Amino acid sequence: MDAGAKPQDRYVVGVDYGTLSGRALVVRVGDGAELGTAVHEYRHAVMDTTLAADGQPLPADWALQDPDDYRDVLREAVPAALAASGVDPAQVVAVGIDFTACTVLPTLADGTPLCELPDLRTRPHAWVKLWKHHAAQPQADRINALAHARGESWIGRYGGKISAEWQYAKGLQLLEEDPEVYARAERWIEAADWIVWQLCGVETRNVCTAGYKGLLQDGHYPSPAYLSALNPGFADFVAKIDGPLAQLGTRAGGLTAQAAGWTGLPEGIAVAVGNVDAHVTAAAAQALTPGRLVAIMGTSTCHVVNGAERAEVAGMCGVVEGGISAGSWGYEAGQSGVGDIFGWYVKHAAPAGFASHEELTAAAAAQPVGAHGLVALDWWNGNRSLLVNHDLSGVLVGLTLATRPPDVYRALLESTAYGTRMIIEAFAEAGVPVDELIVAGGLTNNSLLMQIYADVTRRPLGIIGSAQGPALGSAIHAAVAAGAYPDVPTASAAMGRVDREVYRPDPERADAYDALYAEYRRLHDHFGRGGDDVLLRLRAIRNAARRPAVAPPVDATTDPLEVPA
Amino acid sequence: MDAGAKPQDRYVVGVDYGTLSGRALVVRVGDGAELGTAVHEYRHAVMDTTLAADGQPLPADWALQDPDDYRDVLREAVPAALAASGVDPAQVVAVGIDFTACTVLPTLADGTPLCELPDLRTRPHAWVKLWKHHAAQPQADRINALAHARGESWIGRYGGKISAEWQYAKGLQLLEEDPEVYARAERWIEAADWIVWQLCGVETRNVCTAGYKGLLQDGHYPSPAYLSALNPGFADFVAKIDGPLAQLGTRAGGLTAQAAGWTGLPEGIAVAVGNVDAHVTAAAAQALTPGRLVAIMGTSTCHVVNGAERAEVAGMCGVVEGGISAGSWGYEAGQSGVGDIFGWYVKHAAPAGFASHEELTAAAAAQPVGAHGLVALDWWNGNRSLLVNHDLSGVLVGLTLATRPPDVYRALLESTAYGTRMIIEAFAEAGVPVDELIVAGGLTNNSLLMQIYADVTRRPLGIIGSAQGPALGSAIHAAVAAGAYPDVPTASAAMGRVDREVYRPDPERADAYDALYAEYRRLHDHFGRGGDDVLLRLRAIRNAARRPAVAPPVDATTDPLEVPA
Repeated sequence: MDAGAKPQDRYVVGVDYGTLSGRALVVRVGDGAELGTAVHEYRHAVMDTTLAADGQPLPADWALQDPDDYRDVLREAVPAALAASGVDPAQVVAVGIDFTACTVLPTLADGTPLCELPDLRTRPHAWVKLWKHHAAQPQADRINALAHARGESWIGRYGGKISAEWQYAKGLQLLEEDPEVYARAERWIEAADWIVWQLCGVETRNVCTAGYKGLLQDGHYPSPAYLSALNPGFADFVAKIDGPLAQLGTRAGGLTAQAAGWTGLPEGIAVAVGNVDAHVTAAAAQALTPGRLVAIMGTSTCHVVNGAERAEVAGMCGVVEGGISAGSWGYEAGQSGVGDIFGWYVKHAAPAGFASHEELTAAAAAQPVGAHGLVALDWWNGNRSLLVNHDLSGVLVGLTLATRPPDVYRALLESTAYGTRMIIEAFAEAGVPVDELIVAGGLTNNSLLMQIYADVTRRPLGIIGSAQGPALGSAIHAAVAAGAYPDVPTASAAMGRVDREVYRPDPERADAYDALYAEYRRLHDHFGRGGDDVLLRLRAIRNAARRPAVAPPVDATTDPLEVPA
Repeated sequence: MDAGAKPQDRYVVGVDYGTLSGRALVVRVGDGAELGTAVHEYRHAVMDTTLAADGQPLPADWALQDPDDYRDVLREAVPAALAASGVDPAQVVAVGIDFTACTVLPTLADGTPLCELPDLRTRPHAWVKLWKHHAAQPQADRINALAHARGESWIGRYGGKISAEWQYAKGLQLLEEDPEVYARAERWIEAADWIVWQLCGVETRNVCTAGYKGLLQDGHYPSPAYLSALNPGFADFVAKIDGPLAQLGTRAGGLTAQAAGWTGLPEGIAVAVGNVDAHVTAAAAQALTPGRLVAIMGTSTCHVVNGAERAEVAGMCGVVEGGISAGSWGYEAGQSGVGDIFGWYVKHAAPAGFASHEELTAAAAAQPVGAHGLVALDWWNGNRSLLVNHDLSGVLVGLTLATRPPDVYRALLESTAYGTRMIIEAFAEAGVPVDELIVAGGLTNNSLLMQIYADVTRRPLGIIGSAQGPALGSAIHAAVAAGAYPDVPTASAAMGRVDREVYRPDPERADAYDALYAEYRRLHDHFGRGGDDVLLRLRAIRNAARRPAVAPPVDATTDPLEVPA
């Protein structure tokens, strides 16, 4: 911690809910100094093979969580962070949270999770569906096909494809597989909004998840006609998700007595509207200015960038007004495999003598650009942006008997940089400029990787100044909710931290990468845009060959914001 | 050894000259029983970095040998094999040899190697150019371009491309880089024919190397007009290679007193005309019947098959009348990386826990066809047949975070089987039927690999019955040269050994492989036939990026008939 607490200071608490744990961070309002932090690991972690309540097996591709584990973060991590900070809880003026998304649960009208009702405890569909619950793909396919068939205007705002992870696919799966639980779900709510409700007793719907995951565009949700065409019983779905919309950084309510008891924080202090972990990082990284793209690079990468204008960008995750900060259009994109691919290489493809990222990076760093003769397509975990197809897979070309492990490792690092450049160019072509990169997440430690990204994208690359970007971002939103700053950008400027232009593109290397990127792009289009659908056919052949096995393999098993081991 | 020597038996000696050593094998004429063997490793091995005579550095891609090392095999290995066999040397009636090809050297008119002249000892071009001397590629490129430009009829017999390894490219390099040595080279001769000359004192030119490497077709060499268009000084080249042609299995001459002294064999016994290691294996494997393709599978694979008719097969190494046995048209093809690729994988791409071929094979064998979801292009060492381009490189598609080492290993095994099927289909399309496979070489030990080849090619697959196929083949030719059999096929039937149809295609697996082979073929044509020349561009980028380094990497560093370590 970089500063001591003084009696006259005011403080806020940011709570970041990840895939396996929640972290609380105590932050000084005046300058964003981080004074104390604590982590609480969810007792039930991710339920992806059995339901904790009765041990029943879960089907393939399921991923559930227990909402009470989220309350435990308030009971455990917040008091521990306060204790670590030395801050007097009476000086804390607000609390803010961020969450993985789309992580969603069914509740009663009063916010009681259905899984906490005794008669529904052993019904898997009554529990929280974590972001990486991927069992609703058939529903997502129908959602997309119908949207295009009907010419629904909103589909263009999501790059032409809705994810199986989002509120509609998961909700439709609930309806079709357990209609009783669907009927009893008076609310279908993002965990981000649910935990805020637990803190302040007031239901809100933050505009970020309402837009990106709830398909709210220009004040409208998808129409009942569309929804009933999907399934007649789904016509009323919007009634379960529609709620009081709230801009990011506003006050959802005051901390309840019960939540004050859990956290040790003063009753009545401001509770900020919920956020999403990736998006809230932009505030922590002082990157709310249009053109400053934040890449949160861990096992996978999320990209968020504000734009002054609205544009439709093919293959992007979505564009939402105020989705990152009020007054701008928030754009989101992503790469589904980044650190995961490097981790796969170290674990499953590197021989003895090259058993760590450090060794491989050191050996790879010495190479001139192009000296390994390789180009890879970074689709080991599918493609989340531009192609939006999780059945795509990785490609490696240029292998020879002289190819050595640092060659392949470097080619994998570069392939993810090419993937980022594809996204940046798609933004630019759609009229959303990207002038510089700001990187957050665990991969910022690899300076070779950072330099490659600067060289490949020809953009200066900065690094967030906090190791707890999401929690700091939530604290910034809490400060605004408490009225300490007039708006999020002002609070971000005062409390956020970034080292800009740490890496600058080297013109010679950038020129060399242009030639390799041209090859990547050609391969990308050949294998991803119909030149040869061999990857899709191989996936189908693979799945058919493995059918006798009990559970198909799940590729996307890691938190997109998690640092690779 | 499978039988004892009896006084009434007659014997022959076969000598197989490989890349790093020569092997002598004592064989009983009556039934081909192998009674004793011995190996002698060349003292100077392969000179690819420095010249042994004075330590001078050699340029990249050079590979020289010392011809006296070949005599040492006669001095050391033959007596040792005789001693090991317990055979009375007086009962040996003939000796035959086979050699790597095109391995070629300049000599005086009496057969004295130029490198043994004191004033030429430090001239690299005076030494033997080993088959894998690859520094004459610029000359080969010109040879091919000019042949097509002039519409030379012989180029079609070689699949449309002459290799940089063959007599003309190496000879033209000699002329252009050391014209004095070229001028003093009264003969330019295959090592196979030179060592026979050393044994019997008579110069012969076996029809096999004269056809495959010397471009002799229908009794004619390339014309002086063509040769002088290549280089005016090259017009007389044929005078250096033209010599008394001799059919395989005939007697080149009688063992000289000097050679009798070296070997301990009786003076005057028959010395058979020289052979090539791959081609002579067909006789050992009882595979001289048209339609029975012999694949000698080691670090790379050579394929030889007799055909009743002459055909021109695009991308093949060549077709030569009597090139495998008199009376048939001998076809040759090859895959430049096979065991080498598997060895590369084990050494450079398999993590701890999968550090041997045995472990990987055992794990891979359990998979249903297609379950790994991968297809590879087996071009780690370029492509020797169909595409004939050593600048091509390997491709691996279908990688995911769930891909494990046995998956990749199996995909590599399969990729080489697909490569063999491409060759078989090219033969079939040109009217050269291939009804069954007979496999020789070190990879016959891998029963998973053998079954994959049977399944992928839909052909029954037999295994040669000798671990010393080339030496046994040379012994068979020696027996014919001594008059013990009327012709090579008859001797092959009596002395050769094969277990036919050891592996039969499984219809269900073959059907599954048809789908994967279709993907291989599509990728093959895309990356190898102009759909996307990315591999060639990556090679050029790689070579340019590495230019500051002293010596470019050499990929093709292993004997094509050698067993991978």
